[in-house]
Formats: sequence, structure tokens, C-alpha cells
Amino acid sequence: MLGLWLENQTLSLREDLPIPDRPGEALIRVRLSGICSTDLELVRGYYPFNGIPGHEFVGEVIKAPDINWIGKRVVGEINAACGKCEQCRNGRSTHCENRSVLGILNRNGAHAEILTLPLANLHRVPDNVPDDAAVFTEPLAAALEIQQQVHIQPADRLLLVGAGRLGQLIAQTLVLTGCDLSVVARHPHQKRLLEEHHIRLIAEDDIPERRFDVVVEATGSAPGFELARKAVRSGGTLVLKSTYKGEITVNFASIVVDEIKIIGSRCGPFAPAIRMMENHQVDPTGMIAGRYHLRQALEAFEQAEKPGVLKVLLTP
Amino acid sequence: MLGLWLENQTLSLREDLPIPDRPGEALIRVRLSGICSTDLELVRGYYPFNGIPGHEFVGEVIKAPDINWIGKRVVGEINAACGKCEQCRNGRSTHCENRSVLGILNRNGAHAEILTLPLANLHRVPDNVPDDAAVFTEPLAAALEIQQQVHIQPADRLLLVGAGRLGQLIAQTLVLTGCDLSVVARHPHQKRLLEEHHIRLIAEDDIPERRFDVVVEATGSAPGFELARKAVRSGGTLVLKSTYKGEITVNFASIVVDEIKIIGSRCGPFAPAIRMMENHQVDPTGMIAGRYHLRQALEAFEQAEKPGVLKVLLTP
Repeated sequence: MLGLWLENQTLSLREDLPIPDRPGEALIRVRLSGICSTDLELVRGYYPFNGIPGHEFVGEVIKAPDINWIGKRVVGEINAACGKCEQCRNGRSTHCENRSVLGILNRNGAHAEILTLPLANLHRVPDNVPDDAAVFTEPLAAALEIQQQVHIQPADRLLLVGAGRLGQLIAQTLVLTGCDLSVVARHPHQKRLLEEHHIRLIAEDDIPERRFDVVVEATGSAPGFELARKAVRSGGTLVLKSTYKGEITVNFASIVVDEIKIIGSRCGPFAPAIRMMENHQVDPTGMIAGRYHLRQALEAFEQAEKPGVLKVLLTP
Repeated sequence: MLGLWLENQTLSLREDLPIPDRPGEALIRVRLSGICSTDLELVRGYYPFNGIPGHEFVGEVIKAPDINWIGKRVVGEINAACGKCEQCRNGRSTHCENRSVLGILNRNGAHAEILTLPLANLHRVPDNVPDDAAVFTEPLAAALEIQQQVHIQPADRLLLVGAGRLGQLIAQTLVLTGCDLSVVARHPHQKRLLEEHHIRLIAEDDIPERRFDVVVEATGSAPGFELARKAVRSGGTLVLKSTYKGEITVNFASIVVDEIKIIGSRCGPFAPAIRMMENHQVDPTGMIAGRYHLRQALEAFEQAEKPGVLKVLLTP
């Protein structure tokens, strides 16, 4: 089959990839896949992954252990869990110690014609959620992980640093809590999209220090972390929503004296993500910046690398 | 009056200190004060404080705006709040932006014959709590701040790194939650004291990696942080309970991927600390390692500086 292949940090298009088959899993024909910042980081070598990248997709089940799934339009949770380790037995399967992760860890991903996942990972897509929206389910779920981990109160003052691929979805979901949200965005297109959703922008220089109950850092950069740290109030919460390159040096004495909570945040719940698109509470389609056939995947990655570009989609 | 004086990181005993008087505050004759690690850090210059150090005490009210307090045996919360700033107006007076802190920030402390505090800071000491226990109220409250901030479940597996002045009190209170607690202690006296309280010790080399739901770091050292980070499970909580010297370099990518919560923790609630001593649930008196008259305060500080020494007390 046709697919994108990553090996030793080099992407190539291959036509000779075997059709995948994992015993007991479903085969899914990919209808649309999305390029995520994590894909770009894999290419840069931040994680040592060789295989088919891609973990954002919407597809159709073409083979499954349970025939009721066949022909269904689905999205899929990316962590395939063992069900036996201590994390799994305690209901924390996204932290399974033996997990494979679609297109990220020990499992071929979505930038291909066909992928496999366990049935337990699949969610049906409601008819009124088009492919263009459904392909955002995974990052939208990741955005909602913030509300899973932190109780955002309607009276809270929130700052979101970063309005890229994930930041846009975080902004759209956070604002629904009723909180007093301000967003730091850099690129004109990011700003315009937030304004279309009536989300307030704030210039970096206008951010008051130590005033925000919760600050979400979604740039994954040291300057972004610094800005976020300065903005959070004593006793407040700092959510880290992007994987950071390398290490960051932190004054932990001030974290203790100010009783700051730092929360690392990764994958989130699919069901509410789908529900919010079904109910028209969130519309991610404005983020689509480019569409390519899978054969043009290398050009697609080039576009996705450019600063400020939001979502680039691939059609097999 | 007689008191200890800190100026430019040099301690001296002075007999010529003026009897303090702050309008509207209570005057308290100190019966006993305790030397805390923070006192030692002030001498080392970690914070720029000049004045009378000391913030752990039990005393007797000798003058007060409300005569009902006179003659009462009291302990006192150390943060004097303005009542007007945004933190105060939101019920977070320990984070008051204009606060003074007894013996730490803009307010003379307890290693003297007399101190002052607002009445709002005072708590009466029950008759069955002796001075030797009451003087531990402030650090015991700081230990309980962990349970204020983090929901410790009885089924949780906990690791406490460090069994010094604060660590001992943390261990005694954590074990009451029913959690499965292990403590890393270094000094024989610290170990013996934990064993007397039937608290399980664990050798550093025996600590399983990524297995603890909550890890409390109470050493304030980079190696302690490293040990704690390795021990906490994915999705677990790392409580920082000591102020760290300098900065620590952290791999935040792993904090995000593992969804670790890092919680800075400082001052805690006095009422439950007093209640737990009144009810004989916690007995800190086994930690007393030395007693000195205030005139011998410099020798007392020398003893407190020695590795493994727990609480050294001063009597004015």
C-alpha cells in the first residue's frame, strides 16, 4: 500500500508497504489524516520512531473481529494498552507501561492507506460530523484533557500562551467554561481565527504578572514557559500542554513559596471531543490550512513546518 | 529586651532590642521558640532578611486590643496579611501580596523575649498540649498543607524523600491517611524515630521506579528531586515541600508525556495541627534534640546546623 515512511529522521513516500494486520485488531481505511506538531518533532528526531507516522485520522473499518464495526466511520484513540500492567489495572490505560502509540511508538500510524487499532480504541463518528472535523478528534481530546485534570471554575482568570494547532482547540474549549480567557497569539492567521470565535487576544507586554488563576502553556518553548510562570498567581496552576525540547531550568524555591501547581497534560478523552463537535460547540475546520493527496505528503510536511501554519490534511 | 539579631547574614545576641509595638497587634511573651531550616537558610543568605529571626513559637499574650486574649497561651500563624489585595479578597491570605512574615519578611520574629502579631493570627493552645508540643504547631501545619492541596487516598502508595525536621512531621501525618507510606531517611536518629511511630523505611536502592501515586520531596536538594521524579508513576503527583537552593534543570517533555503534577507546598492550617496534638494523633516531642536558653542561641544554631539534628529549642 501507499504510505509515508520515517526512518532515521528521513521521510519518504513508499508504495510497497505491506497491508498491516495485527491479530484481533480492526483494519481501517484512512479517509483523512492530519499533520501534528508531534509528527514534525519525530522527523527532527525528538523521539526515536521508525515506521509510518501520523496519529490524527478519520477512517472506515474494513475488517474487524466484530462484524458490526465493518463499514463504520471511526476515529481512534492512539494508545493501545496491554490491559494487564499496574497502570491498566488501575484504569489508567493511556499510561499503560507496555503501550504502543499510533505513529509514535512501536505502532505504524495514519499517514498511509490503511492502519490497524484494537476495537477498544475506536469511536464511531456521528453522521453530522464531517471528515474535516472528525480528523481533529485526537487533538481536541488532548485539549479537553486540561479540564479532565484541572477544575476550571467559571470565575477563573485564564491565560493561554500559544495559539497554534493545539492552542486553537484549547482556546475554543476553555472559553466554553465561562472563564475569563486571554490568549497570546503570534501569527495574524492565528489571531484572526481566535477573533472569529470571539476569543480575547492579549499582547505579551500587556500581561499582568501573577494575576492568572490558571495559565496554559502551549508553545513548548522556554520563553513560553517563562512567560507563563510570570503570569500565574500564587497558588495558581500552570498547565504544560506541549512537549518541550531539551531541558528547562526552573527556580523551584519560588514554586514552593508561591505554591504553584505544574500539571503535565497529554492525551484526553475522545467521547466529549466527538460530542462537542456533534453539538456544534466546537468547530475546528477553520484551522485547515492545506490539503494534499498522500502522494504529495512530503510537500504537505513542508507546508506544515512553516511558522504559523495550522492544520495540513492528507487524503490517501 | 534580649533577642537574636540577624544582619548581613551574621547572627548576634543583643540585649538592647526595643520591646516591639505594632498598633492594633498583640504583644506575646515567647515561652519557647524552635529553630527551623528556614532560619538556617536566612543566615546563609538565601533570603535577604535583616531583623529578629524565628517563626516557630508558643507564647503568652501580655497585651492585646481585646482583653479577653490577655494571659492566654497561644501559637501564631506567621503570615500577616493586608486583607485588601486580590489574594486576600479571594481568601488566600497566606499568599497576600503585601504580607509580612514572622522572622522571615519585614517582621521581627520569635527568637526574642517578645514578639507581636495581629490577633487574627493567634490560636489558643489547649491545656493538654504542652509547650514542648505547641512549639511544633507551625511546621506541623506546614506538613498538613500537603493534605490540603492533594487528595491522599487510603489506597495510595506514597514515598516521602527526607526525614528531617519537616519530614518527620509529614511522615506522622501522612501515615494517618491510611496510605501505603515508605520513607527514605538518612540519619540513624531520624530512622529510629520513624520506627518508633511504626513508619516503614525504605533504602534508596530498593525504591521501585514509577510506582508511587504521590511522592513528597522534603530534602530540598537536587538529588532528592531526581529520586522523587524517578519514583512517581505516570499521572502521579510530586509534592515539593522544601525550598530549593538555586535552580534545578528538569526534562519537562517527560513531565508532559507522563502527565506528572508538581505541587509546590508551603504554609498550612493551624487549627487541625493543634487538634491533632490535642487528640494525641501526632506527638512531635520526640524530635527535640536540644534545649538552650536564648542567651545561648548562637550555640543552639551551631547544634541545629549539624547533619541529622532535628529540633533545637530556645527558652527566653
